[in-house]
This record gives sequence, C-alpha cells and structure tokens, in this order.
Amino acid sequence: MSPASLPYRTALIVGAGPGISASVARALASSGVTVGLAARDPGKLAALAAETGAERFAVDATDPDAVARLFDDVDRRIGQPDLVVYNASGRVRGAIADLDPGAVRDAIAVSAFGAFLVVQQAARRMVPHGHGAILLTGASASVKGFPLSSAFAMGKFALRGLAQSAARELAPKGIHVAHFIIDGSVRSDGRADPSANPDSTLDPDAIAESYLATLRQPRSAWSWEIELRPWTETF
Amino acid sequence: MSPASLPYRTALIVGAGPGISASVARALASSGVTVGLAARDPGKLAALAAETGAERFAVDATDPDAVARLFDDVDRRIGQPDLVVYNASGRVRGAIADLDPGAVRDAIAVSAFGAFLVVQQAARRMVPHGHGAILLTGASASVKGFPLSSAFAMGKFALRGLAQSAARELAPKGIHVAHFIIDGSVRSDGRADPSANPDSTLDPDAIAESYLATLRQPRSAWSWEIELRPWTETF
Amino acid sequence: MSPASLPYRTALIVGAGPGISASVARALASSGVTVGLAARDPGKLAALAAETGAERFAVDATDPDAVARLFDDVDRRIGQPDLVVYNASGRVRGAIADLDPGAVRDAIAVSAFGAFLVVQQAARRMVPHGHGAILLTGASASVKGFPLSSAFAMGKFALRGLAQSAARELAPKGIHVAHFIIDGSVRSDGRADPSANPDSTLDPDAIAESYLATLRQPRSAWSWEIELRPWTETF
Amino acid sequence: MSPASLPYRTALIVGAGPGISASVARALASSGVTVGLAARDPGKLAALAAETGAERFAVDATDPDAVARLFDDVDRRIGQPDLVVYNASGRVRGAIADLDPGAVRDAIAVSAFGAFLVVQQAARRMVPHGHGAILLTGASASVKGFPLSSAFAMGKFALRGLAQSAARELAPKGIHVAHFIIDGSVRSDGRADPSANPDSTLDPDAIAESYLATLRQPRSAWSWEIELRPWTETF
Repeated sequence: MSPASLPYRTALIVGAGPGISASVARALASSGVTVGLAARDPGKLAALAAETGAERFAVDATDPDAVARLFDDVDRRIGQPDLVVYNASGRVRGAIADLDPGAVRDAIAVSAFGAFLVVQQAARRMVPHGHGAILLTGASASVKGFPLSSAFAMGKFALRGLAQSAARELAPKGIHVAHFIIDGSVRSDGRADPSANPDSTLDPDAIAESYLATLRQPRSAWSWEIELRPWTETF
Repeated sequence: MSPASLPYRTALIVGAGPGISASVARALASSGVTVGLAARDPGKLAALAAETGAERFAVDATDPDAVARLFDDVDRRIGQPDLVVYNASGRVRGAIADLDPGAVRDAIAVSAFGAFLVVQQAARRMVPHGHGAILLTGASASVKGFPLSSAFAMGKFALRGLAQSAARELAPKGIHVAHFIIDGSVRSDGRADPSANPDSTLDPDAIAESYLATLRQPRSAWSWEIELRPWTETF
Repeated sequence: MSPASLPYRTALIVGAGPGISASVARALASSGVTVGLAARDPGKLAALAAETGAERFAVDATDPDAVARLFDDVDRRIGQPDLVVYNASGRVRGAIADLDPGAVRDAIAVSAFGAFLVVQQAARRMVPHGHGAILLTGASASVKGFPLSSAFAMGKFALRGLAQSAARELAPKGIHVAHFIIDGSVRSDGRADPSANPDSTLDPDAIAESYLATLRQPRSAWSWEIELRPWTETF
Repeated sequence: MSPASLPYRTALIVGAGPGISASVARALASSGVTVGLAARDPGKLAALAAETGAERFAVDATDPDAVARLFDDVDRRIGQPDLVVYNASGRVRGAIADLDPGAVRDAIAVSAFGAFLVVQQAARRMVPHGHGAILLTGASASVKGFPLSSAFAMGKFALRGLAQSAARELAPKGIHVAHFIIDGSVRSDGRADPSANPDSTLDPDAIAESYLATLRQPRSAWSWEIELRPWTETF
C-alpha cells in the first residue's frame, strides 16, 4: 500500500508512554517498522510492547552514559535505528518566585538536554548513511512563554532551538529533522474525548497520522516544523 | 484505500497553471475529487483539464464581481466546492525607489486581495454546512521580507495575515484553513530537476502530497501552517 | 542637551491626526526638527500645526500621483525630509463572509500601499545622501491575525513585509527603517486614561518617546522592530 | 537632565565582563544608579569597579545556593537591587555528533538556568514592591538555530522562553522584563572597530543606550523584546 510505506525500518521512541508515543508506535508497527520503546520505567510499556511487537529499553534520558548505552543496546537488539522520536518532557508549574530550582533544572534536562543526547546518538548513526529521521515533540510552550510556565517554556524553547539547529545542520546530510508543536490537550490513550465539544482535544492517533505523513515526505519537500491543534482551539 | 480517501468532493483551484496547481489537480482527481480549474487564461489549461477531467473557468481573481460569477458558475457546472485552493501570486522585483506603483498595486491585488475574494466566496458556501477546506499557497516571502522584494513580500505577508485570521475565524465553524510556505524553487511541471544537486528544487508532486496529507488530517489535529523546503535549502 | 539631539532635521508625518502622530510631532518639534503634517483633511490639523510650528499638507496617500506631489510640495515648503513617519491605517471589522470587498481593498490600500508610496518617495530622497529614517506604525494585527479582523490583518501584515524588505534593502544604504508594533489601545490625545487600571492604555507621549529613542540609536546598533504595550496587557 | 533620569536606584549585573556589561555599568553609574558587578572571577572587574564606583561580587550563577548568597550579599552591601541585568552566556561550537555532552549541559546552565536563578531572586525582591526591571541579553541564536550552534541555540532559546514567561507573569506586577537580541558581533571594550566597514560591529556603548532607553519607558508603553544590529548586518 504505497502511501503507507515508509522509508525507515527501525524506530526508537524515547520517553515512550501512553498518548502520542503509543499511537506513533502502533502506526509505525502497522507500517512494518520495527519499534523500540525506551522509558525510565519500561515496566509500564508491557502491554504496548506486546501489542506492537516492540522491544523495551530502560533509560534515564538525561544521563549521557545511559543514553549511549541505550543506543548500543538498541543496535544490538533491534538494529541501528534510522528513525528516532523524542517525546519526553519535564513539566513544572508555578510562579517564578516559588519554583524549586532543582525541579527547574530537572525539567530543562528532561525536555531539552535529554533530547540533545538522543539526537547526538542518532546523528552519529545516521550521518554516515546519509539517511534517517529525527522527530521531536514540542508544545504550545515551544513558541509561547506563558505565566507560571517558565520552567516548561525554558525546556520547550530549548528543544525547538535544538530542532532548528539540527534541521539546518543535518538536512543537507540527508536526515529529516522535524519538530511538532502540539498545541492543545492530548486525549489520554484509550480514553474517550473528555470534552463537551467533540474533537476539542487532540486524538493521539490523529497526531500519529501527521508524524507518519511527515516521514513520507520526499526530500525535495520536507517540513521541519508542523503545528497541530484541535479545530476549536484558541490560538 | 483509506489514507487516500479525502473528506472533500468538489475542489476549485484558482490561479491554476503548471507546477503546484497541476500536481494538486492530478492528486485530487486521482483521489476521486471533482476539480475545477480557474485562471485568467483558461486556454492554457486544456491539456491538464483533459488529463484530470477538470472543468475550466476564466476569472480575473482581483475583480469582486468576476469572482462572484466564478463561484456561481462553479456551483452550476460542478457543484458547490467544499475545497478551494488559491495559488495565484503577483511577483515584481526591484528596488523600492524604482518599482512602478501600478505594478506594486497589481502584485498585492493578485497575491492577497484576490485570495480574500476567493476565501469570502468559499466561506459563504462552507459555513452553512460546517464543512470545507481552504488552502493558500505562500512562499519564503510570506515570512521574510528580502531586499528588492518589497512588492512580493507585501502581497505574501498580507496573504498570511488573511490565512491566520481565516483559520482563527473559520476553524471553529468546521472549515480547515491551511497556509503553505513553499520555501525554495519549484521544479516546472514535467521538467527534470534543473539543479546539479538531486532534489534541491521542490517537486510539485511532493508538494501536492503534503497538501493532500493536510486535507486528510482529522479535525482534532489540524495544521494551519506547513512549510516545505528541499533538504539542501538554506533557511 | 545631548540625548535629545536628533540626527534628523526635517520630518514628514503622513496620516497625521490626534494620538501617536500628534505626540510624535510635538516631540520632534521640541527637539528642533522641522515638521510637516500630511492628512486627507489637513483642516483638522490646525491646532497641532499652530502648537508645533508644523506646515500642513493635503494628500490621499493611496494615490501615487498625489504622494509624488506631496513630496514635491514638502521639498519646496520645508525642505527635503530626512525623516518620514507613516501612521495611516485602514481598519474594517467583520466576518470574512460579510465584509464589503471595496472596503477591504481600501483598507489594504491605506495601511500598506500608501505606505509603499511614501517609502518610495522617501527612499528616492534619502538614498543619494546615505542618510535618513523611515518609521512605520503597526499594530497587534501586524503579527497576529484575529477573527473578524482579516482586512486589518492583511494591511498590517503587508506593512510589516514592506518594513522588513525596506530595512534589509535600505539599512546598508544608511537609512534606518523601523517598524513599531503598538500592542494595545492608544489613549486619545489629551484625554485621561479611560481605563479603570492606571496606565493600561498606551499614552501616545510614551510611544513618541520610544520613536525618538529609536531615532537616536547609532547605526552600529539599530532596531528594525519595536513592540510597545501597557504593563497590564495580555499578549 | 530629565531623559537620563532612571526610575531605578540599585543595579546588579550578573555575568559582568568587558563589552556590554561594562558599557551598561558605566551608563548606569553616570545616571546615578548604584551598581553591583557579579562574575565567576571578580578579580578581572577591578578597573571597571574603580571607574564606576561599583561593588564586586563572586558568583557561580549556575549554583542555586551561590545565587541566593549573592543576592543576600548585594542586599547587605549596596541595598536590594531594583534592576537586574543577566549577561552570562555559554557558547560551545561544534557538530551535534561531536559535542561533549558535559560542555553542552554547562552551556545551557550558564545561558539559561543561571538566568532563571537570578530572575527568581530578583522577582522575590521586586514583586512585594510592585517595582523593578530585569534585562536579559540574548543573541542571534535566541531566534535562529544555526548549524554547528545547537548548544548555544538551546541556551539562548531557553533564555528567551524564560524572558517571555517572566514578562507575561511579572509585568502585571509592575516589573519590566526586557529581552535584547544582539544580532551581530560586539566590538570589544575599548577596542577600535575591527571591521573594514565603519560601524559594522555593535558598539557596546550604543547597546547600553538602548538598554537605558528601555529602562526609561513609562509602564503604559513597555517593550519586552528589542533587537539590535549594525546597519550593515545581513538578517
């Protein structure tokens, strides 16, 4: 089935959990892509792994050595990934005067520094082949700093800076880097739309469709940033 | 085949010509959508119309009465369009001190005012049904004003302002408005890639794939702006 | 008094009226700049002209010949302007489906095409001297297309496109082009702040201070875009 | 002299060194503001402190406890600051595949996390008084991720996210937060313009003038972002 066929064979999703990651894992698996799922606690990924045939990996994405070991493990167990998705994010809410500095540091580390580590390992594997894709998941806070949201904005703005630098640096080497701005609430995996208005929260399967459409783009017409929001969302 | 099925039945492409319009027309037609092609000189659309089964229409998109008549004609001949694409643009190049004011006025009229007229007629038909899609074709100049490009920038910035207002106004009424930033040179229809580097110009068929992927987005996860550029493009 | 001394001698303000234009005219006059005030109806400028010693000029800024004549008049009566401010804007409000096309065309003409004509005449006079400044007044709608505001957004986005192209084209020729985003309601000239919250509307004298501060910037550190909003404004 | 009078009395500049910090320190001191200069190695600030009458402070801005102690010291030695400037930045250059992860972590910490710590201490002191200003120094990399510049872009994008959140959160509490995008090379303190083209590098005194002009803005018309570049700079 031609539109569904993807030019990638082995995917690693870091920061995997329910929601977007689960939908992307299912969509990739049903397109014939071998999937690895990495999370701090891979125990919670058992059902998803069973459903998609994915391998599970444990990782603290903010630890350089752990991320290096993760990629070595992935290489060995499912093969070198030519598609990497980073979904982890660190969200802390509160007034600037009140936030715990350690929590802010951790939030930046999870949203952005961990992404750097993962992009670095991915780049090392993809650049020699001139082929690969790296997808990074952002949020409204990637482009708008809201009150009481400074820590989340710092991490997500930083992730976007990484995504833009990586796109400019790696696209001419044949690697498709794309940054998604998820602008709205994502419906939890398997839950009904909790809102009174139908479709006013993002269906993670719908998000996954746009991730896959981006992966299918021929290299003469790549997007590096795609924003997605419900039809009813104010922006 | 499900990914190819589109929730739209009748499309009108205004400013149709070779390149993006032709590729979009072919992609829509092969997805089962009835297509109308409108241009100032529809004579040049004969081969494309024959190939896609499209009806042709003559219009000066900058004339309010002519645009109103166009939509009445379309309604009568192929049915009310639930998908409208605006591709016309007015490009004039030159130093600000040297440009001919009349040419600048015309460039703004073609790039932006004509788009307004078309969006208005589309909105009048789509709002009562709570259904429809409007796609607007922008350029690098939509988001960056270059030297010697003031006239083109004025028209394309204005088109983007229209697209953003229309998205905010019409999305909650069920109409998907999307603005495409075509950031690079588009390969002419049917021509080989003229560049030394493969795929360093945008293939219009690749662009059309992203237009159709956008049209397939469920309303819980719509994009309003999609930029597309070759892998080798500096940005 | 050094900070107040400006490197410009003769200013022309087009679209002059109460509010920002009046405050800028007063600030320029009290810094020793000769001021010309142009408006469709210069009769309403009598008091301001008397107060500031400004000359008045009648112009329809959307008419290329009228703008050419205006600058010839200004050259003759107060000398070639080395500072030009464009403040006119065309605001129409309404749903896309309901707007009168003629009113939309006029709004774009006043906000953007008139600015082009004025910038063109200014550039012709300034480029040969490698000296001059052009200030363009934008609004929230310059960077955000709101619902029911498509016509205003089209004009203001287009003005910003002109401003950015002009900055890139003319700055290396020694001409300082600056675009101001006035993000909030401007207090009417001479009126008390109508809001319950003190200073929650923009004081036009405060705006004028930032216009003059921008004019004082040495050419090694120019701004091309300056946004101004009340401390209480949501953005 | 009225334009020079500032509504702030006690300033703390963190990340002080030659260049922008020195020029801002001199401009503040000559406007009657008491200045504190903080740096990792305050020894290098001896001449500047002597010239401006500033007190010097040692701090590792990336250490929460050290920043808390710094502000306690400042409170005791020169009084609670009602103006805080953050100029430190961590710049690392290299391909994503080659960068040292520890150096990337440090770069983000210096450019962004340190700024958070400083803004937090400032906010705690300013919010109770409903008065204060916080100035943050960005770069081209704050809004554009360049190739080989991912680490710098991550830090500077994150700083901008902090600045925007802080502006939205703290402006309605009477605190003026402003973010400066320094888009070009800054001439070293006391050095002649090294470029062939006069004024094609940013004069730090010119930058300081715009910092002070921003501090003079009345609260009815505040800027939160100001970009500065030489007249000859490509952007």
